[in-house]
Amino acid sequence: MPDRIYNFSPGPATLPYEVLIQAAKDIVNFKDRGIGLIEMSHRSKEFIQVVDECEALLRELLSIPQNYKVLFLQGGASTQFAMVPMNLLGPGKTACYLNTGTWAKKAIKEAKLFGTVDVAYTSENTNFDRVPLPAEYTIQTEAEYLYFVSNNTIFGTQFHSMPETDKVMVCDMSSDILSRPIDVSRFGLIFAGAQKNMGPAGCTVVIIREDLLDRTPENIPTMFRYRTHADKGSMFNTPPCFAIYVIGLVLQWLKKIGGLNAMAKMNKAKAALLYQAIDSSSFYRGHAQEESRSLMNITFNLPTQELEAKFIREATAQSLDGLKGHRSVGGCRASIYNAFPYEGVEKLVNFMEEFARDNG
Amino acid sequence: MPDRIYNFSPGPATLPYEVLIQAAKDIVNFKDRGIGLIEMSHRSKEFIQVVDECEALLRELLSIPQNYKVLFLQGGASTQFAMVPMNLLGPGKTACYLNTGTWAKKAIKEAKLFGTVDVAYTSENTNFDRVPLPAEYTIQTEAEYLYFVSNNTIFGTQFHSMPETDKVMVCDMSSDILSRPIDVSRFGLIFAGAQKNMGPAGCTVVIIREDLLDRTPENIPTMFRYRTHADKGSMFNTPPCFAIYVIGLVLQWLKKIGGLNAMAKMNKAKAALLYQAIDSSSFYRGHAQEESRSLMNITFNLPTQELEAKFIREATAQSLDGLKGHRSVGGCRASIYNAFPYEGVEKLVNFMEEFARDNG
Repeated sequence: MPDRIYNFSPGPATLPYEVLIQAAKDIVNFKDRGIGLIEMSHRSKEFIQVVDECEALLRELLSIPQNYKVLFLQGGASTQFAMVPMNLLGPGKTACYLNTGTWAKKAIKEAKLFGTVDVAYTSENTNFDRVPLPAEYTIQTEAEYLYFVSNNTIFGTQFHSMPETDKVMVCDMSSDILSRPIDVSRFGLIFAGAQKNMGPAGCTVVIIREDLLDRTPENIPTMFRYRTHADKGSMFNTPPCFAIYVIGLVLQWLKKIGGLNAMAKMNKAKAALLYQAIDSSSFYRGHAQEESRSLMNITFNLPTQELEAKFIREATAQSLDGLKGHRSVGGCRASIYNAFPYEGVEKLVNFMEEFARDNG
Repeated sequence: MPDRIYNFSPGPATLPYEVLIQAAKDIVNFKDRGIGLIEMSHRSKEFIQVVDECEALLRELLSIPQNYKVLFLQGGASTQFAMVPMNLLGPGKTACYLNTGTWAKKAIKEAKLFGTVDVAYTSENTNFDRVPLPAEYTIQTEAEYLYFVSNNTIFGTQFHSMPETDKVMVCDMSSDILSRPIDVSRFGLIFAGAQKNMGPAGCTVVIIREDLLDRTPENIPTMFRYRTHADKGSMFNTPPCFAIYVIGLVLQWLKKIGGLNAMAKMNKAKAALLYQAIDSSSFYRGHAQEESRSLMNITFNLPTQELEAKFIREATAQSLDGLKGHRSVGGCRASIYNAFPYEGVEKLVNFMEEFARDNG
């Protein structure tokens, strides 16, 4: 194994090393068939097996009920911001959105092109430092669905209990899918870009309850209809083969380490270590309010912007990479997704202690 | 090098072996930075350099004029079937389409959702065995653009001279881009899925003249507007990083072997050898009419379906893989894209001669 840096990037992000090694082999010669994985027809027996195994593992790990379809799409979560209302909204119809940050805002903008959007909650006035409790918003009776973002990558907030409603729940889980067990049956549609907890950029997983496939208006283009992909097992056109393959490897790794319960425990331990370092020092200040803190993206500031720049510079020099916060929050952000190792968090915490001592 | 099969798949397709070897290294440890290529932030200096170099090479190889933007998008050519009319058509407007096969038909279907489609030519009555000469269709004066498919993968036909018109030309070049020099300045928009001549599945290259970026109606979602991606250098959201990286490697290989002139010469030689084998025997019958024959996808039939099945079975046993034709034509199809080696065509031709001798 080469010396690996600790990669705190918000996505694309760290993947398990054994996944990279396996991908490197299969890219050159897939299962010794004399053909590279990325050269294989998506209609070949071998590749169809790759997709089928990937879907089966995802269903197993997330306990996805039989009446849900799993789709492997392209275009990122940003394309879902439009596809969700294209398929589930329409003129004269209303949807309820919770505005908990940049990605929710972008989704709201797209939904307005296809129907009425009721923004039932926003934490914008405190720079999105929290997510709401169920009592903090009202969902209109006529709403077609409730839309929310389970983890806000940029601001470092996360829903620790899901909204409670009998409406169809649509959730952007891009940055915390597979980080903990969830009850899929409570959702109508879940989507997630792969490049944080699941694999490389280039694939978006959509989990959709079958009855929602029939709501799409006639005038929506073929590729933007969920039904198109559901009916063809994500093979209506050439899928993002390599990304699906790597997702499959990551899911194998996740199963091997114990599945979502084991993963959630590790994620809690990593985040606890880091939040403890922030809370035990007046030098560091967390951005998110305590009850909304994300276990995936930990956002924090230092006393001055100059110190923040120095912190990031010196951390990078010690192979603690990708800690610069998003410009919306400034400061620092440590993204510690599933595959990010505990030792990396320990190293960061040690560095934080030293840095505070030297510069406090 | 492991024993490699000869992969005649229509896409995803054979890639240069040296590209696979380089990708395998970089996936584990990109330029010895201690991080894998698919783990790197798309906003990192290193990855931005990957994209910039890829674009620069494409511009160099295709001599793309300065007033064109190069976009690396997701969703395949099938998504472009909708994006083209979403951006360039609208209610009350007309576009001219040449119906030369399955992919043109699919594009026509999507365009009808956004305006009036004038199908000025079709070869459907002879099962798409040819493409038209300029004199064989009339473009309406009010047409916003002329849309055509330069190479028809399924039927094995190809435009050997491009249409002549002062209208905006939109071309689906998915299966022959970079196979020969073209004059980009004659086109308004060119698009191509990567998985034939450029790289793995998961990226679609769009080359668009800048003045066409301003025609998009207000109500088109952000991700489906070319302007969105053009203004952000394909980084509005996370791009398909791995596919772009591999495209860059393929372009380096293409430049090294001599660029498009050298490539075109090799492609001609490969196709000539194969068509010669078809024409010199009454056992094989080419599907495409001679003047429309594709240099990329060679479609042919045998005397009976039983012989075709036997041919494919025995060829596969000799590591001549992926020769089964599309169900629309039946029979056989040899896809011999840029990276397909001359020796593979020689081996196929030898096999064809033997098979005809033994079964004729």
